[in-house]
Amino acid sequence: MKKNNLQKGNYIYGRNSVIEALMQGARRINKILISKNVQNDNKINEIIELAKNNGIIFQFIPKERFADFNDFNHQGVIASVSPVEYTDFYEFLNTKKDGYSKLVILDGVEDTHNLGAIIRTAACAGFDAIIIPSRRNAQVNATVEKTSAGAINHIPLIQVNSLSSTIDKLKDNNYWIIAADAHGKDNYFDIDYTGMNFAIIMGGEETGVSKNNLSKSDFVVKIPMLRNFNSLNVSNAASVIIYEALRQDIKHSV
Amino acid sequence: MKKNNLQKGNYIYGRNSVIEALMQGARRINKILISKNVQNDNKINEIIELAKNNGIIFQFIPKERFADFNDFNHQGVIASVSPVEYTDFYEFLNTKKDGYSKLVILDGVEDTHNLGAIIRTAACAGFDAIIIPSRRNAQVNATVEKTSAGAINHIPLIQVNSLSSTIDKLKDNNYWIIAADAHGKDNYFDIDYTGMNFAIIMGGEETGVSKNNLSKSDFVVKIPMLRNFNSLNVSNAASVIIYEALRQDIKHSV
Repeated sequence: MKKNNLQKGNYIYGRNSVIEALMQGARRINKILISKNVQNDNKINEIIELAKNNGIIFQFIPKERFADFNDFNHQGVIASVSPVEYTDFYEFLNTKKDGYSKLVILDGVEDTHNLGAIIRTAACAGFDAIIIPSRRNAQVNATVEKTSAGAINHIPLIQVNSLSSTIDKLKDNNYWIIAADAHGKDNYFDIDYTGMNFAIIMGGEETGVSKNNLSKSDFVVKIPMLRNFNSLNVSNAASVIIYEALRQDIKHSV
Repeated sequence: MKKNNLQKGNYIYGRNSVIEALMQGARRINKILISKNVQNDNKINEIIELAKNNGIIFQFIPKERFADFNDFNHQGVIASVSPVEYTDFYEFLNTKKDGYSKLVILDGVEDTHNLGAIIRTAACAGFDAIIIPSRRNAQVNATVEKTSAGAINHIPLIQVNSLSSTIDKLKDNNYWIIAADAHGKDNYFDIDYTGMNFAIIMGGEETGVSKNNLSKSDFVVKIPMLRNFNSLNVSNAASVIIYEALRQDIKHSV
């Protein structure tokens, strides 16, 4: 954990404060860190219980990792919180809107600057939401807020525990799933994004889209590379595909 | 100057070393910093003379700004160097190639991460070169090399002293000039990038393309924004336009 992430608003410290946060606005909590050295008392049990009920990740970590927070009265419990409230996936699905929905799903994007830039691009392109898994992906924190230039307040962000079941649910709700992968069959501009609900899955910087999610996708698209140098940054790759979808939409409606 | 930029290979220290660098490989030098407190002896005069002859920026700066370099025997003179050798603009123009040439021109892009990401995208899309002004724009340093994922070695980088006269020269050589600006007349996808040499001008994060360069452009294009949030990161904006040009090229040749 870097010192410069320790700003106010990014973390909630102490047992009572974390319990209160879990009871009042669980949707803003990214995850809960509990020191391995902490006494397993009633409050800790309550925190674990509330976290489980709300589908929030909790981790037991060595007390050395709490060293950065020693200026705060954390009592061995810290909640990392998002600067915005996440939108509930089912609420989002059940909210009727005119026209088709366009989503971006992130599958293992680790860099907070990339996360911020993708949120910013999707907001500009009028996409409807971004889905972020609660594990193995950067979460929305103050760095993301800054890199997104405030876009986190302009597009719904949905945090989910299982991408796999989220994708299944989207397919049940008439979404087409489009994964971006270097070994894709079609060029990203050779598929038709109009006249359908869709979700574009962008994979992590090192790992790409997971095999399981690739296998669930209706399309796997690639971005053509013209040099013996095959390495587009994930936020740039995302903007290329996001804006191709928008381009088709605008052309189609003319 | 940040401490973490002080790595080997980014700077050349001392009068004799800087003179030698100027005589042997001036193309790698971003700029020369001279302490205001330095004695104006023959070697300093020689450095200034050589810098002028090679069109390299030199700046007299307060000795406090040399404090970070005090571990090195700099004698009041430091040259900031690029990890790659810049390509000469006229050599580039005079090198014949098959087909049309595609360039990116940066006009005041200040963030080294954005510079690296744009170089990376242009390299992937098979663009022919990137033109970077020697003033008021990030220069190619170790951070850019890293952010570009090594792309600086896969695409020619051209450093010029005057963007204005470079654009004139490009127009003389049958290049069409396309500037990106939020107030552009056409959507970026409504112009035809095929069958011509062209250069896309991307402006700085805060300032955009300068008025003078906008007035010289054959096209001024915008990227449509669908929300009441109008702020695409410059590297993402660049990738959207760069890949639209490539998309048209591939579609056109099918």
